[in-house]
Amino acid sequence: MPTDSHPTNLRPTDLYDVLHRRRDVRGQFTGAPIPADVLDRVLGAAHAAPSVGLSQPWDFILVTDERSRRAFHTHVHRERAVFAGALAGERAARFARIRIDGILESSLSLVVTYDPHRGGPAVLGRHAIADAGLYSVCLAIENLWLSATAEGLGVGWVSFYREPFVRDLLAIPADIRPVAWLCLGPVTHLEHVPDLERHGWARRRPLADAVHAERWGAMPSGGRDAVRGRCSR
Amino acid sequence: MPTDSHPTNLRPTDLYDVLHRRRDVRGQFTGAPIPADVLDRVLGAAHAAPSVGLSQPWDFILVTDERSRRAFHTHVHRERAVFAGALAGERAARFARIRIDGILESSLSLVVTYDPHRGGPAVLGRHAIADAGLYSVCLAIENLWLSATAEGLGVGWVSFYREPFVRDLLAIPADIRPVAWLCLGPVTHLEHVPDLERHGWARRRPLADAVHAERWGAMPSGGRDAVRGRCSR
Repeated sequence: MPTDSHPTNLRPTDLYDVLHRRRDVRGQFTGAPIPADVLDRVLGAAHAAPSVGLSQPWDFILVTDERSRRAFHTHVHRERAVFAGALAGERAARFARIRIDGILESSLSLVVTYDPHRGGPAVLGRHAIADAGLYSVCLAIENLWLSATAEGLGVGWVSFYREPFVRDLLAIPADIRPVAWLCLGPVTHLEHVPDLERHGWARRRPLADAVHAERWGAMPSGGRDAVRGRCSR
Repeated sequence: MPTDSHPTNLRPTDLYDVLHRRRDVRGQFTGAPIPADVLDRVLGAAHAAPSVGLSQPWDFILVTDERSRRAFHTHVHRERAVFAGALAGERAARFARIRIDGILESSLSLVVTYDPHRGGPAVLGRHAIADAGLYSVCLAIENLWLSATAEGLGVGWVSFYREPFVRDLLAIPADIRPVAWLCLGPVTHLEHVPDLERHGWARRRPLADAVHAERWGAMPSGGRDAVRGRCSR
């Protein structure tokens, strides 16, 4: 069962509990099977996401094949070395201790793709923002991630890869873009603190620093409280 | 209170209830104020999203100013005309009946941006996928959307705009990218069926069509059930 740092009277599917419990998992996969009804709910959650022009431009490739996963794992670790090569000193030392994937230990790899032609030619809401379809795919990924968390699964988004490699590996057509390689499966627990913070790689930023009033950089003297005050008139 | 098509014994913050109740809202805003604690939880939900390299590259600009919102509204309706000009016949007639925004009626406009320099220069997990930071911003937007839905607010994502216009309007620096203009606020209700489906613009696609096994286009003869069977071994 996932560790729960929140009040125990919450249901396992309480939105706020799930939102704050969710982690990017690399090291806690057990490899146990995902029950069919659970996978069904997780994919259903992804598919219920909003999308520009109701285009639903996502697809989900479920990868269990050992050979595909090993090939991807090898590729990812080659890309890890590329990134490591750009670091020096203390950053390099820290990065060496950080685990970046659970490809081989997780129960399932789930590749999420974007089809720019879905719902076309004229996708309502996309003529001025070409990336709006790509944004929709990400909304589906977050739904999937939250649903998986609620179901006691961990999710790890691996992004140490080149898109053409994944396209070749899974026979994805040239006009379809792989957006995410997700590792999915039951976990021993979810960490309270994100891995990259535990390893001293990055620190979370206070929300107050991210909130602006009316225009970029404009922060009322009272800070965030004042911002809230304005919006609750 | 939002209309609820799901079992009434669910808590208002049940994840699955919220996921399936969520809508892209244009026409049901009441304009009533957003209580400070509610806005706080909604922004907190966004800020709890996963991000590549724990970079948290998002910012939130809260826009209540009447002049900014009117200027944006005028711009959006100019872009609406651009899109309408590309349609003909029955598509044009259908589009003419579809409402695309609630900019002036909603309680708050919330602009979400992407800062590619946040957490840099070497963002862990972004060296091979330049868009990974942009993806993180979208994950935050979906968290925000779900939290708002749980709180009885509607959210409408307006994408009929040119990014340079929004950048100028809100003094957003050249290297920061506006990703979404969201309209937010209490609503009379949430529709059961997405607007674009109600108006016959688009139909939702069956999930089974979006699920592939092992590689693109490979669907076991048993379809989705068989896919599920494989993953629950």
